Amino acid sequence: MTTRQDCEALDAQDPLARLRGLFALPAGTIYLDGNSLGVLPAATAARLQDVVTREWGEDLITSWNKAGWMQRPQLVGDKIGRLIGARPGETLAVDSTSINLYKVLSAALEIVKRDAAPGRRVIVSERQNFPTDLYIAESLAAQHDFSLKLVEPDEIAAKIDERLAVLMLTQVNYRSGRVHDMATVTRAAHAAGALTVWDLAHSAGAIAVDLNGAEADFAVGCGYKYLNGGPGAPAFLWVHRRHLDRMDREQLWQPLSGWMGHAAPFEFGSAYRPAAGITRFACGTPSAIALAALDCGVETVLAAEPLGGMAALRRKSLALTNLFIRLVEARCAGHGLELVTPRDESIRGSQVSFARAEGGYAIVQALIERGVIGDFRAPDVLRFGFTPLYLRFVDVWDAVEHLRDVLETAQWREERFNVKAAVT
Amino acid sequence: MTTRQDCEALDAQDPLARLRGLFALPAGTIYLDGNSLGVLPAATAARLQDVVTREWGEDLITSWNKAGWMQRPQLVGDKIGRLIGARPGETLAVDSTSINLYKVLSAALEIVKRDAAPGRRVIVSERQNFPTDLYIAESLAAQHDFSLKLVEPDEIAAKIDERLAVLMLTQVNYRSGRVHDMATVTRAAHAAGALTVWDLAHSAGAIAVDLNGAEADFAVGCGYKYLNGGPGAPAFLWVHRRHLDRMDREQLWQPLSGWMGHAAPFEFGSAYRPAAGITRFACGTPSAIALAALDCGVETVLAAEPLGGMAALRRKSLALTNLFIRLVEARCAGHGLELVTPRDESIRGSQVSFARAEGGYAIVQALIERGVIGDFRAPDVLRFGFTPLYLRFVDVWDAVEHLRDVLETAQWREERFNVKAAVT
Repeated sequence: MTTRQDCEALDAQDPLARLRGLFALPAGTIYLDGNSLGVLPAATAARLQDVVTREWGEDLITSWNKAGWMQRPQLVGDKIGRLIGARPGETLAVDSTSINLYKVLSAALEIVKRDAAPGRRVIVSERQNFPTDLYIAESLAAQHDFSLKLVEPDEIAAKIDERLAVLMLTQVNYRSGRVHDMATVTRAAHAAGALTVWDLAHSAGAIAVDLNGAEADFAVGCGYKYLNGGPGAPAFLWVHRRHLDRMDREQLWQPLSGWMGHAAPFEFGSAYRPAAGITRFACGTPSAIALAALDCGVETVLAAEPLGGMAALRRKSLALTNLFIRLVEARCAGHGLELVTPRDESIRGSQVSFARAEGGYAIVQALIERGVIGDFRAPDVLRFGFTPLYLRFVDVWDAVEHLRDVLETAQWREERFNVKAAVT
Repeated sequence: MTTRQDCEALDAQDPLARLRGLFALPAGTIYLDGNSLGVLPAATAARLQDVVTREWGEDLITSWNKAGWMQRPQLVGDKIGRLIGARPGETLAVDSTSINLYKVLSAALEIVKRDAAPGRRVIVSERQNFPTDLYIAESLAAQHDFSLKLVEPDEIAAKIDERLAVLMLTQVNYRSGRVHDMATVTRAAHAAGALTVWDLAHSAGAIAVDLNGAEADFAVGCGYKYLNGGPGAPAFLWVHRRHLDRMDREQLWQPLSGWMGHAAPFEFGSAYRPAAGITRFACGTPSAIALAALDCGVETVLAAEPLGGMAALRRKSLALTNLFIRLVEARCAGHGLELVTPRDESIRGSQVSFARAEGGYAIVQALIERGVIGDFRAPDVLRFGFTPLYLRFVDVWDAVEHLRDVLETAQWREERFNVKAAVT
């Protein structure tokens, strides 16, 4: 039977333990919501002060060159690329996940239209995919006269056929934490003549991703979850070199053809001519401040590189989630918590979700009052994210003890935990 | 003949003079580039520290509600709305100008397709409009099977006919500073059965704008020029209430249908249902940090409200640009500078541009070395922006003296001023 002392021992042996020092963690908080908003890195505040007071305040317009603001989307993009199996020049940090998905899914549909039989007009995704992805796909399907088919995870394989144009999946499901095998699914899609678009919102910085190894086609992802880039941080997008090269050759556009994606924006020509490579996926002027914060966040993940990188982070992440599952099932037994996240660690992301027929929202609120921050995802999911960069094994122990107490004392039934805020 | 002493006297009498104290102006700089990147407000650095260290660092995910991050696009949008003749609930601060233009121009085209004869398929704009606007229009014209016609300013009237679908203009031209009469042009477009889309990038915070007074249809604008929101700040968009109401009634979408524009994003439903009103024009998760900086910037312009607001700022702006034109023409005569900006102040924005057959780039570089920051717009325009919030009449005098010296000593011919940087 595991004890709190055992957890302390695990922390003492943890080779990644010192990475916790890279963060400005609030005292008295056990933060299990890094999959919604990553913690503030210790370096960010000073970096933003420098960007604001020196780069903007003192150097003003010259900073577009002098401070490298112009190239920041490519530079931060390439740093993120190191975490997801991208080569340099394939990743761009820019705009939001939704907008980036619009760009890459548009590009994918355009390529399908050029190459494929007219009957290939179906976009397949999961019904439980993160909604914004579905909304963007719904918009593009209508515009391009494709149909969007939403299925359950175990129905995907059956939908990979000669009508499939694009398979659009989020690698790690935001509710369940279930992971798709990117290489296997991509291979199947390609064998059927389709393209893949991957959302890495809950993957980048959370699990080992190898986009080139999987021969994936397009990907997008989020900057403010495991990349710790700050609230509403710029997102990223990735495109396989074979598609970038082809877009270069055939002068293909993505539809958000703003000036930052132009081959020569400062010639101020009146006709669009897409930039070569990944830069054609840029659109408007990027936020130098938001990108600096994202850069600091990405650096916290890259700091694990000399300690084993994403493989080491993944090992610790699984140790944390295994421990959490084991402790909850042992110490909170009989309280109606049903594991939603796969028990099989090979298909589990860096989170653990439990469903509960009643009181999920209130239980999360009661935990928050105790300083244990998880979140609730309607209608019935209690979701706990485990960021290996800053979480300790004792945090897992303490979180479970709080959960046990909230359940055993039925504290969650108190009225104040049952008043819903606008955003949950 | 005006002297530096006269300029000092003008500053002493200037009722807006104390607004300069709202900015962290670098010592020794005369900043005539607020139309490219506005100066850092004095309040911004502390505000961002608070957003970063307290709202994000301490309060983490709870700040989406507690600190009002969720409603910031609407809140800052409404503040901007006060500067452009908008009513509450018509303006949203979000994304980039290019992306916002994509949204509103898409909505305009959708409305035209529903209402108008099939022959109405032309988007008209100016050849010298800011390129990103043209690139976005080019993309949408191709997608929707419209044609984009680019004309000179004096050819616009002739293009307002039964084929015109949307007239898309930037109210103040970025090169020349020439202003379109929004009310007159809009009336003519409406009389011909067309809609208008206005880019206010060089208008908002620079000249008095009355979108509702002009009965305009759609507008977008920039947060980092006269609104002082910081490098790559979120932009804004505005939609007339009659179109918002209609989009509500007919459940019309804009194509970037991300979750923040959904009627109930936290229900996590799989089908898109647009939010009511201006919120349907939101897309992905907004940057709380970038919006806080924009908020501080907009507040500097709103600080003029008790001193006469945009009308008072406009009076000072014209006094500054009139003085600059008069001094340059008097003191730099014979040096080949040709006024590009209208001499008629009723159609002049808050900038003055001169064309010069040779050396424009190098002259601007020589001025920058002296601390006089203007910019060069290829192929031949020297552009000087005059932000009445922080510029003094003595700054105008001193800037002209530097320009005179650069020209009379032919300093600009020195080699170091003729090496082009990547971005000019």
